[in-house]
Amino acid sequence: MKQAELFTKTIKENPKDEKSINAQLLIRAGFVDKLGAGIYSYLPLGLMVIENIKKIVREEMNKIGGQEVLMPSLHPKESWEITGRWKVEEMYKIKDENLGLGWTHEEIVTPLVKKHATSFPKYIYQIQTKFRNEPRPKSGILRGREFLMKDLYSFHLSEDDLNDYYEKVKEAYFRVYERCGLKEKTFLTLASGGEFSSSFSHEFQTITKSGEDDIYICKNCGASFNEEVFESKCNCGSVDFEKKKSIEVGNIFKLGNRYSKLFSMENIVMGCYGLGITRVMGAIVEVFNDEKGIIWPKEIAPFQVHLLELDVDASGIYNDLQKEKIKVLYDNREKSAGEKLGDCDLIGIPLRIILSKKTIEKNCVEVKKRGVDKIELIEIKKLIDFIKNEF
Amino acid sequence: MKQAELFTKTIKENPKDEKSINAQLLIRAGFVDKLGAGIYSYLPLGLMVIENIKKIVREEMNKIGGQEVLMPSLHPKESWEITGRWKVEEMYKIKDENLGLGWTHEEIVTPLVKKHATSFPKYIYQIQTKFRNEPRPKSGILRGREFLMKDLYSFHLSEDDLNDYYEKVKEAYFRVYERCGLKEKTFLTLASGGEFSSSFSHEFQTITKSGEDDIYICKNCGASFNEEVFESKCNCGSVDFEKKKSIEVGNIFKLGNRYSKLFSMENIVMGCYGLGITRVMGAIVEVFNDEKGIIWPKEIAPFQVHLLELDVDASGIYNDLQKEKIKVLYDNREKSAGEKLGDCDLIGIPLRIILSKKTIEKNCVEVKKRGVDKIELIEIKKLIDFIKNEF
Repeated sequence: MKQAELFTKTIKENPKDEKSINAQLLIRAGFVDKLGAGIYSYLPLGLMVIENIKKIVREEMNKIGGQEVLMPSLHPKESWEITGRWKVEEMYKIKDENLGLGWTHEEIVTPLVKKHATSFPKYIYQIQTKFRNEPRPKSGILRGREFLMKDLYSFHLSEDDLNDYYEKVKEAYFRVYERCGLKEKTFLTLASGGEFSSSFSHEFQTITKSGEDDIYICKNCGASFNEEVFESKCNCGSVDFEKKKSIEVGNIFKLGNRYSKLFSMENIVMGCYGLGITRVMGAIVEVFNDEKGIIWPKEIAPFQVHLLELDVDASGIYNDLQKEKIKVLYDNREKSAGEKLGDCDLIGIPLRIILSKKTIEKNCVEVKKRGVDKIELIEIKKLIDFIKNEF
Repeated sequence: MKQAELFTKTIKENPKDEKSINAQLLIRAGFVDKLGAGIYSYLPLGLMVIENIKKIVREEMNKIGGQEVLMPSLHPKESWEITGRWKVEEMYKIKDENLGLGWTHEEIVTPLVKKHATSFPKYIYQIQTKFRNEPRPKSGILRGREFLMKDLYSFHLSEDDLNDYYEKVKEAYFRVYERCGLKEKTFLTLASGGEFSSSFSHEFQTITKSGEDDIYICKNCGASFNEEVFESKCNCGSVDFEKKKSIEVGNIFKLGNRYSKLFSMENIVMGCYGLGITRVMGAIVEVFNDEKGIIWPKEIAPFQVHLLELDVDASGIYNDLQKEKIKVLYDNREKSAGEKLGDCDLIGIPLRIILSKKTIEKNCVEVKKRGVDKIELIEIKKLIDFIKNEF
């Protein structure tokens, strides 16, 4: 894509009404725009990132048998009165109607599966816009009033089968975080089973400087606990913990028969598994950035290559890369070198390639990886091989 | 995909609370599920159809320079008070909040483009869930309270440029309808410019037996008019018209400077261009069906091939087709031949392939196109070439 045609622009100053790193950088780099508290538009670069994350999540959910659906956001009051959750304050209600906006879908998916499924287990997921009444949203796209989420629901004939599948979901989640670049910093963290359960659940917590949550990691065995369940002594016997700030990038619950019972499927036990798409996008920005901007992991970046021309014409290289299906943002704008380099660092595409008068003399381009200081001169005729080797 | 694993099932009886052909067939065939009046879940087969339509629309919008974004559904009251449209009854309002649910996005996209764009023209679109308070929804997914829509907005420095682009959008829309199988039955229909305009707009109206709208087609020149603007004499001089029932599958407006002026972009004129994704899906079903079920056009169908095994094992053929990237639904269920054939017709995949004891003896499969009576025997070793020739 030619950058001159992109309708968004970068912004020099941090937005005054945003405290979080993810919102500051994403707004400045032109990935998102703030419409109101906790409400954001995803601009072309931002939507490309979202589509990349969705693709990863979809592939990993399909690998563990997930069947994708799209359930509505408008939910009838009757469905939520069955579970007693209509009164939950996080749920937006529509004025003068018996309708609310979905923030989770147990009340919808359980009767749907009851109506349709003739055998079990079944695994149903969707990637869908959720709404949640957050009184004071302040963490950028980490905690919006409207956000994209993948929610998976599993239905089993036995606890054993649920337990087996729960482990498979754990593995699938870690594959997602690995492809998003977050795996090393993400801990499977024991958490309470929530309002309706005496057992435990698990959160996937990604360590960052300015996370919303605190987790406690056992220095001896590496087990991780959230604040609700932390009791200052680990199962391994150790009492030595490290307290870390973190962001919850996923959570998984065994629901047992709580919902299935209410919808007359007594013999079924359920699990539910959430993963916020826009939240993961925000977490990636919180983890991968420096003073100059964002540093996107390879599989998440909106483009593979950012091609800059400085007082020369790089359209030949742009066309060659496009022919090879390399995803390239081509900065063909009439701007100063300083401005182009600054925007390039801010936007954070993995590979920066510069064609200038100096490099042309040597039949070369200058290549630099975002987040790495080293600059290389690469012969233009070897460029495509070099890029393909990187991805 | 193996049909035994699909969590949905077909339903024999027409749902009592649905009058429209699209809802009856889509529910019976397991593509959608009704949650409430005008509110539907899209099940795996239905979501596949949606993704096919989205892909077509996206490709055609990108061809005319469209840049895809994702704007929010939650809209602040302030934005809509600027245009005086907060009071519109079709707009759902959130209880106890100054927020409404988006049913169109002029109020959001105009200030967004003002903030970002440094040159014009610009073409911004999204494929997004819209909400509209329909008091008595009764046309299935043709007119839901929640529906998927593509909305494109164009921003120009002159009326001439807007007029040029408007013609390009017309062509792009007809390419979409062509790929959806609807082109022959779809008429560019003159309509009023709406509440805020003295000029005309255009609707794309698809002729069906039970359409919601009436259009008047000039028998002499083929020009088409909706009820608002029909004046019983065509521009060509003819007074001879044919009145037809139809479904609006798209509409395009020249907005002039109405919105740009209100958001302080006086020098800009705008166009807006809507195309309902779920509505097009419904229209396709209304046009392509028979007494047995749906007849999906090739590019829209959830699968290319429906492979049925009757008292034999067709898993070898299934695996071979999958290796060739042919999209196949494999009916490996333990059901009677009658039930399998009935479901196959109801679901409406373009190519039915049957392996039975009889066909195996001849090293053949039986091949039949949905909607065509002719049945052919094809040698198994020639099957892949035959299928590839069809698509």
